[in-house]
Amino acid sequence: MITLLTDFGLADYFVAAMKGVIHTLCPSATIADITHDIPPHDIHSGAFTLAAAYARFPCGSVHLAIVDPGVGSARRPLIIAADGHYFVGPDNGLFSLVYARAEQVRVYHATRTEFFLPHSSATFHGRDVFAPLAAWLAGGVTPESMGELIADPQRFALSAPQRDGQTLIGQIIHVDHFGNCVTNLTPQDFMPTDETALMMGEHAVRQFGTHYAEAANKDELFAYVGSAGYWEVGLWCASTAERFGITRGEQVKAVRERQFPVP
Amino acid sequence: MITLLTDFGLADYFVAAMKGVIHTLCPSATIADITHDIPPHDIHSGAFTLAAAYARFPCGSVHLAIVDPGVGSARRPLIIAADGHYFVGPDNGLFSLVYARAEQVRVYHATRTEFFLPHSSATFHGRDVFAPLAAWLAGGVTPESMGELIADPQRFALSAPQRDGQTLIGQIIHVDHFGNCVTNLTPQDFMPTDETALMMGEHAVRQFGTHYAEAANKDELFAYVGSAGYWEVGLWCASTAERFGITRGEQVKAVRERQFPVP
Amino acid sequence: MITLLTDFGLADYFVAAMKGVIHTLCPSATIADITHDIPPHDIHSGAFTLAAAYARFPCGSVHLAIVDPGVGSARRPLIIAADGHYFVGPDNGLFSLVYARAEQVRVYHATRTEFFLPHSSATFHGRDVFAPLAAWLAGGVTPESMGELIADPQRFALSAPQRDGQTLIGQIIHVDHFGNCVTNLTPQDFMPTDETALMMGEHAVRQFGTHYAEAANKDELFAYVGSAGYWEVGLWCASTAERFGITRGEQVKAVRERQFPVP
Repeated sequence: MITLLTDFGLADYFVAAMKGVIHTLCPSATIADITHDIPPHDIHSGAFTLAAAYARFPCGSVHLAIVDPGVGSARRPLIIAADGHYFVGPDNGLFSLVYARAEQVRVYHATRTEFFLPHSSATFHGRDVFAPLAAWLAGGVTPESMGELIADPQRFALSAPQRDGQTLIGQIIHVDHFGNCVTNLTPQDFMPTDETALMMGEHAVRQFGTHYAEAANKDELFAYVGSAGYWEVGLWCASTAERFGITRGEQVKAVRERQFPVP
Repeated sequence: MITLLTDFGLADYFVAAMKGVIHTLCPSATIADITHDIPPHDIHSGAFTLAAAYARFPCGSVHLAIVDPGVGSARRPLIIAADGHYFVGPDNGLFSLVYARAEQVRVYHATRTEFFLPHSSATFHGRDVFAPLAAWLAGGVTPESMGELIADPQRFALSAPQRDGQTLIGQIIHVDHFGNCVTNLTPQDFMPTDETALMMGEHAVRQFGTHYAEAANKDELFAYVGSAGYWEVGLWCASTAERFGITRGEQVKAVRERQFPVP
Repeated sequence: MITLLTDFGLADYFVAAMKGVIHTLCPSATIADITHDIPPHDIHSGAFTLAAAYARFPCGSVHLAIVDPGVGSARRPLIIAADGHYFVGPDNGLFSLVYARAEQVRVYHATRTEFFLPHSSATFHGRDVFAPLAAWLAGGVTPESMGELIADPQRFALSAPQRDGQTLIGQIIHVDHFGNCVTNLTPQDFMPTDETALMMGEHAVRQFGTHYAEAANKDELFAYVGSAGYWEVGLWCASTAERFGITRGEQVKAVRERQFPVP
């Protein structure tokens, strides 16, 4: 089982070329797309979506993830073994959430170029370097035989919520297809009470629930713990992001309600 | 064989999480996407596309269809057996066209929660409830063992054409990728003659043919029986919907030509 | 192995209906999408993407390619055998680059209608004619048994670069997902020197490299040989096409630098 996550889009030959290479080198592989619509060059978005999806696949799956503005430069190609899953992709922080969450992590710099396609291009390592590595892994070649263990993979700082007195300050880390706004606050960070509000910019969310249809009406923001395990802010059958102009990075604050003057 | 139809889009982890669950519970399943681009929350559009696609798949296929604004509420999860195909999804009308067309229909409320994922979320039944049911069905578990037969599934009223004297009044029920406008008029409802015109808003269609390249020119609207079995209105190599501002729901009338003053 | 390339988009039932037919007629086939986002009716774009992708798939693969504004007319359905790959699609020039590059090419007009679906529509040969042909081919039926060898398939003129004194005149033949602009100039046509510039409209490209991260900065255009084997013009982490308003067909010139006045 090989999954694919890239910022390549679906309109070009890029994804197909990788699939062709995989089917050629490992004819028995089953391929599943995670997504190819990561915003171009957006490593943080790729890391979030990869982390939310990979654990649902069977143990032993190979997750080929490529968001790679540094393609062709000295950035290292990696093979990672973590909690029974394999990952293949560039060493640029894309696997930061895997490193943070998995318990057993080994990271290899793929140095053995005989496992790449011959005559690799400098602009399409997805096809010429990473797809072959994933295919060989799926076919049973070990990470050890394709590279060297390293201790210093690139990782970006995870955006952990900050406490400021009774206020917990977080941010929107993802906006989904429906316009729901995913925060970096978990139920461990924050459980609402009668006195709590979640402030997203100037908008106060005072309704907390478990599912969309609970919302009082289509115009009332409400918060719920979403399927990725974080508090999300949504509207019933409408896009929160579009209605309120929210984008990733927007600050959210969990506050005690009585701090607010009643309007 | 499991097909997927949702309004989840392809940019998020939603579809991949469902595929991961299916591959985990039924490793031998072959998965085919019908589409994930149903407009968000648009049950009618989902019903149309599902009905146009499912019968082409082999008998015994499981069609997992999710357009589910009521996720997490009391709406029932369904398993449907109809004409040798299986369907899994929410009880909200999404299967109305299946009920209307299939001859042998049995509908089950999936009540046996041991077939769901443990610790199901309230916001992502696609992953936690429906994907497991589809995987078990594909693996040979019977609908009877996962739920209870019901007689009252939700269905929406089908938009049948209306007769008003010599005029037949229908509507546009789908606009496709090319901008062709699909009506709810079938060849049984209406066959054109020399005296017939199809009125779409204020635009008269007086040319009827069998395929696009027959059109006299790129600016001449013409009508033909499309691949879904309905009369469609199109332009050769151009988008009818965009050129004339047509959207789903627009009224169409099949009329006797002589009713119109010559312009 | 059957690949699919169309201009059908992913929102409709079109692609799924073809996959259903294939899985019904050849249950063991593995299907891989090349793309379904060829711009509607754009045969040149389809030809480019097909040519860039197909050779990566295993020998014996069947490539089903449909960009077919003439569907239902007299244009011939084709089966092509070329360098160990098979192709199925309409006779309208879509396979021009295959004919130009492959060494062993045999083209068949698929005349044996018993290999089509019964009651074929006139508007959806993808489902009713081409998908069945691809499925039978993948299942081992020979091209010879489904049609007749022909010598005159449609092909469009390839846009070869032209020499004008010391200037080589080419054009942009593709703009990719990242906004990189692919020219029709190959390294055989042109290798840069210290005195060379590539003119794209009024913009001079004087930096040549091998990969994106080599670019001096995000605002400096640079050229490199891309993964399709042509010179491309790009920006690091930015869209060249969007920044400079470049579309397919734009002229590019490889010139001697000293012809330019220093600004």
